[in-house]
Amino acid sequence: MLIPESAKGERELIRRIGGILSPSNPSLRVPFGDDMASVPSSELLWTVDTLMDGVDFDSRTQSWRLIGRKALAVNLSDCAAMGATPVGALCAVALANSVSMDAALELAAGMAELGSAHGCPIVGGDTNSWDAPTVISVTVAAACERPILRGGGRVGDRVFVTGPLGGSILGRHLSFEPRVALAKQLVEAGIPTSMIDISDGLSVDLGHICDASNCGAMLDASLIDAATHDDAQCLSAQTGKPPREHALHDGEDFELIVCCPPERAADCARLGLLPLGELVAGTGLTMRDADGGLCEIPRRGWEHFR
Amino acid sequence: MLIPESAKGERELIRRIGGILSPSNPSLRVPFGDDMASVPSSELLWTVDTLMDGVDFDSRTQSWRLIGRKALAVNLSDCAAMGATPVGALCAVALANSVSMDAALELAAGMAELGSAHGCPIVGGDTNSWDAPTVISVTVAAACERPILRGGGRVGDRVFVTGPLGGSILGRHLSFEPRVALAKQLVEAGIPTSMIDISDGLSVDLGHICDASNCGAMLDASLIDAATHDDAQCLSAQTGKPPREHALHDGEDFELIVCCPPERAADCARLGLLPLGELVAGTGLTMRDADGGLCEIPRRGWEHFR
Repeated sequence: MLIPESAKGERELIRRIGGILSPSNPSLRVPFGDDMASVPSSELLWTVDTLMDGVDFDSRTQSWRLIGRKALAVNLSDCAAMGATPVGALCAVALANSVSMDAALELAAGMAELGSAHGCPIVGGDTNSWDAPTVISVTVAAACERPILRGGGRVGDRVFVTGPLGGSILGRHLSFEPRVALAKQLVEAGIPTSMIDISDGLSVDLGHICDASNCGAMLDASLIDAATHDDAQCLSAQTGKPPREHALHDGEDFELIVCCPPERAADCARLGLLPLGELVAGTGLTMRDADGGLCEIPRRGWEHFR
Repeated sequence: MLIPESAKGERELIRRIGGILSPSNPSLRVPFGDDMASVPSSELLWTVDTLMDGVDFDSRTQSWRLIGRKALAVNLSDCAAMGATPVGALCAVALANSVSMDAALELAAGMAELGSAHGCPIVGGDTNSWDAPTVISVTVAAACERPILRGGGRVGDRVFVTGPLGGSILGRHLSFEPRVALAKQLVEAGIPTSMIDISDGLSVDLGHICDASNCGAMLDASLIDAATHDDAQCLSAQTGKPPREHALHDGEDFELIVCCPPERAADCARLGLLPLGELVAGTGLTMRDADGGLCEIPRRGWEHFR
C-alpha cells in the first residue's frame, strides 16, 4: 500500500504510543522509535520485527527456508543500522494450521543458518498455531558500545547508501544480506553521524533521519540514478514508473543510509558506499537535477495501520 | 482444543526445533525450552509470548485494555517462574485493519500500566496492520541471579501451587496477577528447587517439571480439591465435568507450581502456597484418593500445532 505522508497511520500511532509509554521510561541510551531500543539496566540493545504472510512474504510462492531467513535478516538489518553486533534471537510464531511440521522446521532452519553466520543463535521462542495466516515475530539482542542514532545527522553531512536501491520486490527483499559487518567497519572507523536501514523506502527512511536530526536533505538526481538497482529497471518495465521512482520509494531494500561529515566522504566511497547528496538546513527532501532545477521529493513508502 | 498427550504437536515441534538450533547455541545458563532463555553473553534472561485474537483473547467481547494487560502479564508470569525480575519489554503487533487508533492506544495503555506496576517499561516495538485477526507478541527481559529451572526437582520434593486452579476462562486468564513478587520472596529464601507457571494446565506443566527433573509426581485428590478455584465449580455447572478435572487440565491459571525440599514445606505453607503432593521416582503423574487408591492423571491441556 503506497500512501502519501500524512498525520495519520503508523507514524502517528507510534507517536501517540510513545506518549503513553514514555512516563514509565527510565533514562535510556536510545530514544523511543529508533531502529533498536535500549534494554533497561543493561548495555544491550534489542529490536523486534513481525512478518505476516501475504504482506511481508508469500508462503504460496516462497520457500519457508527463505521466509525464516528473512524474519531474522530484517532484525539484523536493524542491528546494522545502530552499529550493533547481534548476540542472540527469540522467535515467536503463529503458524497457519495448514503449515506442516516439515515447513515449520524449514522456517527454523533458514533462520538458524543466517543466525549462525552472524554469531546470533536462536535461543528460544514461542510456537502457536491458528486458523489464520502465519505471523513470525523475531526479537534480537545486540551489543553496542556507541549506538548510531537517527538524530545524529548534522547540516553539511554527506548522505550515502550501502548499495543500489529499488525493485527489491523482485527477490532481494527475501535474500538480502544484512549490512552488519560493513556497519561495524564504518562505526569502528568513526565515520557515521547517523544511520538507518531502508525498510520503508529511501524517501521515508531518510525522512526519519531528517526529522530526528532537525534538518532536510538535498539529493542529486544523477546520484540517485547511479544508485538505482538493475531490479528497479526491470520493475520499471512492469510498472511503467521511472526506475528512479522505485529507487526513491520502494521499501525493503535493507541497505543502510549513512550520513557522515564531508571530510569522511572519501572513506565512505573507498568502502563502496554510493553518494546521494547531503543534509541541509530546513526540512524535507529536495532533488537537484543536472541543470540545477529543484523539486520536492514526496515521502512515499510503506506504512502500516492506514 | 483439549488434546491427549501425544508424540505430535507443539512439544514435538519444539523438540525438533531444538535439534536444529542447538548446534549454534553457546553454553547458556538456561537449557532450551524453559520458561525463559538466556540472552547470550549477558546475565539477562528473556522470553516472548504471542497472543492471537480468537485463540488467546476475544476482541469482540473483551476490552483492549485488558487484552494489552494480558499480553504483558503472560510474560511476567514466565519471569516469575524463573525467579527473575523483569526490566523491560518490547511489543510487536499485527493489528487487524478494523482496529481503531483508540483501540490500539487502549491496548498500549493496558500494557504500560501493568509494566509500570512491575518496573517493566515498554521501551520499543513494531506496529503493523493487516487483513486478518490481531496478533500481539511481547518480549520481556529480566534480571536473574539464580534461574529456577524446570529440571531442578528432586524425588521427595513437595509440590505446591501459589493459588487455586481451574475455570480461569471465566475471566482470570485476563485479569490474573503475575506472581513475580511472591516468586522473588520464595527464591530469596532459597526455597524452590523447581518452578513453572501454569499456562497449559496443571497436568501438562507439572509434567514438564517431571520430564526435565527425571521423576514422576504423586498428587493427593483431597489436596487437588482443596486447591480447586471457585471458578472451576462455576464452570463445572456449565460443562458437566467435575471441578477437579478443570483444576487438573484447564490452561491459563498462571499460578506457579513450586517444588521444594520437604523441610521447606512449612515455609511454603506460611507464604500461602497450597500443597498438592510430591515428586516421586518413576515417570508420569499419579493421583492418590482418600482410601489410598491410585490412578494415572493423563496429561491433557492446551497444545498448539495439532
